[in-house]
Amino acid sequence: MTEPAVSFAKNNRVRFVEELKSLLRIPSISTDPEHAADTRRAADFVAAELRRIGMENVRLIETTTSAHPSGHPLVYADYLRAKPADGKSATTVLLYGHYDVQPPDPLDEWKSPPFEPTERDGNLYARGAVDDKGQMWMHVKALESLLATGGGKLPVNIRVIIEGEEEVGGEGIAAFVREHPEQLAADVALVSDTEMFAPDLPTLCVGLRGMIYTEIEARGARTDLHSGMYGGAAPNPFMALAQIIAQLKDAEGKILIPGFYDKVAKPSADELKAWKAIPFDEEVYREHEVGSTELTGEPGYSVLERTWARPTLEVHGMPGGFIGAGAKTVIPAKAVAKISMRLVPDQTPAKTFALYKSFVESLCPKGITLEVRLIHSGDPIVVSTDNPYVRAATSAMHDVFAKETVFVRGGGSIPIVGDFIRELHIPTLMMGFGLPDDNLHAPNEKFHLANFHRGIESIIRFLSNVGA
Amino acid sequence: MTEPAVSFAKNNRVRFVEELKSLLRIPSISTDPEHAADTRRAADFVAAELRRIGMENVRLIETTTSAHPSGHPLVYADYLRAKPADGKSATTVLLYGHYDVQPPDPLDEWKSPPFEPTERDGNLYARGAVDDKGQMWMHVKALESLLATGGGKLPVNIRVIIEGEEEVGGEGIAAFVREHPEQLAADVALVSDTEMFAPDLPTLCVGLRGMIYTEIEARGARTDLHSGMYGGAAPNPFMALAQIIAQLKDAEGKILIPGFYDKVAKPSADELKAWKAIPFDEEVYREHEVGSTELTGEPGYSVLERTWARPTLEVHGMPGGFIGAGAKTVIPAKAVAKISMRLVPDQTPAKTFALYKSFVESLCPKGITLEVRLIHSGDPIVVSTDNPYVRAATSAMHDVFAKETVFVRGGGSIPIVGDFIRELHIPTLMMGFGLPDDNLHAPNEKFHLANFHRGIESIIRFLSNVGA
Repeated sequence: MTEPAVSFAKNNRVRFVEELKSLLRIPSISTDPEHAADTRRAADFVAAELRRIGMENVRLIETTTSAHPSGHPLVYADYLRAKPADGKSATTVLLYGHYDVQPPDPLDEWKSPPFEPTERDGNLYARGAVDDKGQMWMHVKALESLLATGGGKLPVNIRVIIEGEEEVGGEGIAAFVREHPEQLAADVALVSDTEMFAPDLPTLCVGLRGMIYTEIEARGARTDLHSGMYGGAAPNPFMALAQIIAQLKDAEGKILIPGFYDKVAKPSADELKAWKAIPFDEEVYREHEVGSTELTGEPGYSVLERTWARPTLEVHGMPGGFIGAGAKTVIPAKAVAKISMRLVPDQTPAKTFALYKSFVESLCPKGITLEVRLIHSGDPIVVSTDNPYVRAATSAMHDVFAKETVFVRGGGSIPIVGDFIRELHIPTLMMGFGLPDDNLHAPNEKFHLANFHRGIESIIRFLSNVGA
Repeated sequence: MTEPAVSFAKNNRVRFVEELKSLLRIPSISTDPEHAADTRRAADFVAAELRRIGMENVRLIETTTSAHPSGHPLVYADYLRAKPADGKSATTVLLYGHYDVQPPDPLDEWKSPPFEPTERDGNLYARGAVDDKGQMWMHVKALESLLATGGGKLPVNIRVIIEGEEEVGGEGIAAFVREHPEQLAADVALVSDTEMFAPDLPTLCVGLRGMIYTEIEARGARTDLHSGMYGGAAPNPFMALAQIIAQLKDAEGKILIPGFYDKVAKPSADELKAWKAIPFDEEVYREHEVGSTELTGEPGYSVLERTWARPTLEVHGMPGGFIGAGAKTVIPAKAVAKISMRLVPDQTPAKTFALYKSFVESLCPKGITLEVRLIHSGDPIVVSTDNPYVRAATSAMHDVFAKETVFVRGGGSIPIVGDFIRELHIPTLMMGFGLPDDNLHAPNEKFHLANFHRGIESIIRFLSNVGA
């Protein structure tokens, strides 16, 4: 039933894209309480479609608890009646995706509005186009193609779990996986939330950095003060944060938190050798992807090592004080720095946050009080490549791309993959179809539509291979 | 005619305050283009009142030019027919004030809305209550009291000039003073935009710090990037700004810009001695005015010296990146730091900005490009105390407060005072009636109403003394 399903997908390309556009029009910004209703609307949209295509036991699973007061629902569906021809027990694949998106700001840098999906030059532009609504929709459309051409049957058992909190730490799904692992029992998980290393180069991601996202709040005076009257005597929280941040990382990019690197594991010699063979030009990357005058980072490591296998510390924003146009001469009573760290094996979020918090507190300048908060975290992971599912995936992508798969790591964090390893004891395949210039988390996010369609075909073939 | 005018003012206290409330309801936030019409409405309000009380030649003077595209108008009025009894030529007093106000944010910290003037415990709370609508209104009401009880005549010649750009650098009035000094020809200027050193302590301010307000814009990557994918290789503009800011000032508060202190003049021994005699307790100031755990600033200088006679450098806000609630893992393409310096004699804004700009550029980290912008500036000044106008003022305030006047400096900047010295060659009396806890530029700005009324009486008596 593989080839009919592939044909079905080809014949329905226009409709698949139009449906995706409808989903992308819903501003399901999970971090923004004002978009809580939109976020639920996206969950309802996905659930309705899973029901329509013939998935079973479709339901929303609420994640709100007293400890997690503004949770967004999980979307669950399954099909557990697959019957392999040889009478063996059927394999179960757990399909994971997320329907929430990052905030779209800065809005004025979008060429078309973030929630009005727009096609230009073979790309679909919208917030969430590739991260992750577009890639999650590939799963749904692969299932539809198999069900529609298989008389309502699938070649493998499937569980679908789609969350709405990936961009805010995924607390709800983490609790669900921990508390109800039996409801997600499977042999392997498939996650499409990563990218291809280069256009036309089928890619499996076998490692991810973890992260801790923190805020440092600095308080000085009781209330905002006039810098003319008080400047020179009153503590300035921004000055304090600048002094602290400047001591967290040296000019080269080395993180100065004592003990920070103690648990950092080096990639294997084989992995480092494979990375050297990947087509990658640091100068092209600098000019065309980053667009800065120079790259930064720790000396002695390649860009791929720095972004895949080395931790980093970044400042994302510094709310407080006066940020409007023009001049306001205020010494603000408080200021905040939003700072995250990406972690690599074998660092742990809890231990790293403790080291960071204690170091930041030790740097607290005179007259300032600090609060160091952990907003969310995720484990770094590496996954095994030695299993039949990896072979089913590389074979499927070879059929579609006519190329060998490259194995890479990702610099980003998908905390759920760590949860699947820890709680469900299953490997995860990270088979993503984004491109490096898809502008994730940035203005003008896009999905290359050819990859959307190749992704659907790859997933159809992968599921068929697993079920064969 | 002094005592009838004083009685008139006393009998009209309630009306004077109600009129001031009407003016305070107009959100004339000069820095915000969305409030341009409100700002003009405040100018019209003041001009109408000057006309009503009998001032002459009342008019708005437009300040918008091609070089200054969004100027707010000046309000001008005069009375030039005073006839001293002894046949001498009449003295002309130039009354200065401003009708624009600072932005009210952070809004959620106001106990009553900033543009709904509210009386509590003998204070009038509103943005602009004391800075400077309330103090400017004292001038207008002193003139009204003298005109109403003097048969439409004044004891001295008066020119009134009220600007709407004081909070954004005063470019319009500076150009007008430079280009039309004859239209403001006077013997002395009176400015009420400062504070009393303590409740019940009549105060003349004889020195002000100058300032330069700047922005440093740091740019790294071409577009916002995902910190997971690019963290460790892409330059981070916030990290760059933190590194730069941390090198501008040491932990003690000493500014590290080479040459910055070269022109800093020490106050005279007499002045330092007088400051020691002023009732001031640094611990009370720390606890009740600032409310921080400690004060900061250069060792070896008292708080009065640090805020009156030493320069400072402050960060006011750092726009850019993600400042919403929750987490967004962006490496922003650009970030800005709003930084001002307060200057003291004999520093100059131009020279100081040049030293600063060149030092900041020398600190530019790898991969970052910087733009260092001057937003506005004002000269530091000290004014002479040896003239008959100072004696007329101290005598007037002695009649009202029954106390000797103290001579202080102010840490803030009133650039127009420098312009009056430089272009009009006249001394300026800074006779202000604010209090140290009036929350200028901060939430819950207020004016102690007893001081509003004592200010009106002091100005009536001062003008009468000058005309006697």
